[in-house]
Amino acid sequence: MSLHLVIGNKNYSSWSFRPWIAMTVAGIPFVETVVSLGDPDFKATVGAHSGTGKVPVLIDGDVRVWESLAIIEYVADQYPAARLWPADRVARAHARAIATEMHAGFAALRKALPMNFWRPPKRPALADDVTRDVVRIEAIWRDCRKRFGAGGPFLFGAFGAADAMYAPVVSRFFTYAIAVGPEARAYMDAVAALPAWTAWRDAALHEPWVLPQDEPDWPEVPRLPA
Amino acid sequence: MSLHLVIGNKNYSSWSFRPWIAMTVAGIPFVETVVSLGDPDFKATVGAHSGTGKVPVLIDGDVRVWESLAIIEYVADQYPAARLWPADRVARAHARAIATEMHAGFAALRKALPMNFWRPPKRPALADDVTRDVVRIEAIWRDCRKRFGAGGPFLFGAFGAADAMYAPVVSRFFTYAIAVGPEARAYMDAVAALPAWTAWRDAALHEPWVLPQDEPDWPEVPRLPA
Ligand SMILES: N[C@@H](CCC(=O)N[C@@H](CS)C(=O)NCC(=O)O)C(=O)O
Ligand SMILES: N[C@@H](CCC(=O)N[C@@H](CS)C(=O)NCC(=O)O)C(=O)O
Repeated sequence: MSLHLVIGNKNYSSWSFRPWIAMTVAGIPFVETVVSLGDPDFKATVGAHSGTGKVPVLIDGDVRVWESLAIIEYVADQYPAARLWPADRVARAHARAIATEMHAGFAALRKALPMNFWRPPKRPALADDVTRDVVRIEAIWRDCRKRFGAGGPFLFGAFGAADAMYAPVVSRFFTYAIAVGPEARAYMDAVAALPAWTAWRDAALHEPWVLPQDEPDWPEVPRLPA
Repeated sequence: MSLHLVIGNKNYSSWSFRPWIAMTVAGIPFVETVVSLGDPDFKATVGAHSGTGKVPVLIDGDVRVWESLAIIEYVADQYPAARLWPADRVARAHARAIATEMHAGFAALRKALPMNFWRPPKRPALADDVTRDVVRIEAIWRDCRKRFGAGGPFLFGAFGAADAMYAPVVSRFFTYAIAVGPEARAYMDAVAALPAWTAWRDAALHEPWVLPQDEPDWPEVPRLPA
């Protein structure tokens, strides 16, 4: 029986993107179901599996795991060969710290800059708390790349759990044309060059659902031609 | 070299309580430093070790781990004999789901009902979003106890990472005299009967620092006699 990942809209659901890109880049086979966050049956469909009634949720036989980070921990646990966490103890501790920091934090940035792949890039004015989040994220990336990034272009060299947790932020930084230094930009470009990124983004651009609450400029929804 | 855990006030710092109780109940030796959240040198002292400038932070030789859940994952990783996560795959997945749900969630409850050991028990009026958090937490506990709790009085039988993540909520439920069913009450009583609980609480009651922003009734601070 294969893994089954239930996710929200690829254009909007930042939490869904995290386990999806972790599992896809790692080559872990799974079946996906997309349920639009605007679907009137969303709560009934998702609530049948997820303790919180939210996406993402992973179904694996008798196992149900909700919360993006718990899903990533579960697949890291079940597929050790995928090396979703760094093998080195110091690097692994650091990866867990920044992954949990993302899981609990950056509320200002998440609220002000919702993930939205089809918006044409445009920089809004940023409130101070959002700017602080951006500065902290750039520091996290810089620090990881410098200390642990020697083996490849990602935070700990090879793409893993920590990168997956930050992938929606990479998308937001592109969409909202956030000014970052050359190291952060190189990291963002490496993430956006992944075939998994392109696959998710292409699917997002073809989704039929426009959710007004996730479109700051509604009703002038700036959709790219699909 | 022994582990060194830097924490905030035992009376107020709910995030600090989590790794402290996990490590203490598991019998993992560590040295602790308490830095009051109101200390003018807090940021300088804590920022020297913690990526976020927040407590808790764990120092282990060349390793620095911040974020309560990442610290718990680190010690679970380094001390597998402590069995902080359940050995069974299904139970472990469930424990990670509810631990990460706590790590990212329950903002309404955390804000409205700050942890505070020295307040005399008194129930405030609860806003709807706080009530929803209470109901969800009780459902999480009930469900865990029923499915995984056969081997002992805690969420997965023996005390572990998931219990540690919910320990501050147990304290809040006592302090704010939250009405819960008999199963939740039995679970809370089991947590409060731990010697580690008593040790933390006693230390909290003897702390000299009163932080107005964490005392809803300030300046009528309802301090218990220490
Ligand atoms: N902390 C959770 C957050 C999950 C979450 O908020 N999911 C949103 C979509 S991105 C959702 O399902 N919203 C629908 C709802 O709340 O009804 C995680 O890591 O998975
Ligand atoms: N998500 C973090 C939260 C840490 C946190 O917010 N700590 C508070 C005390 S409970 C703190 O250090 N506040 C001081 C500050 O922000 O300056 C964790 O799990 O450790």
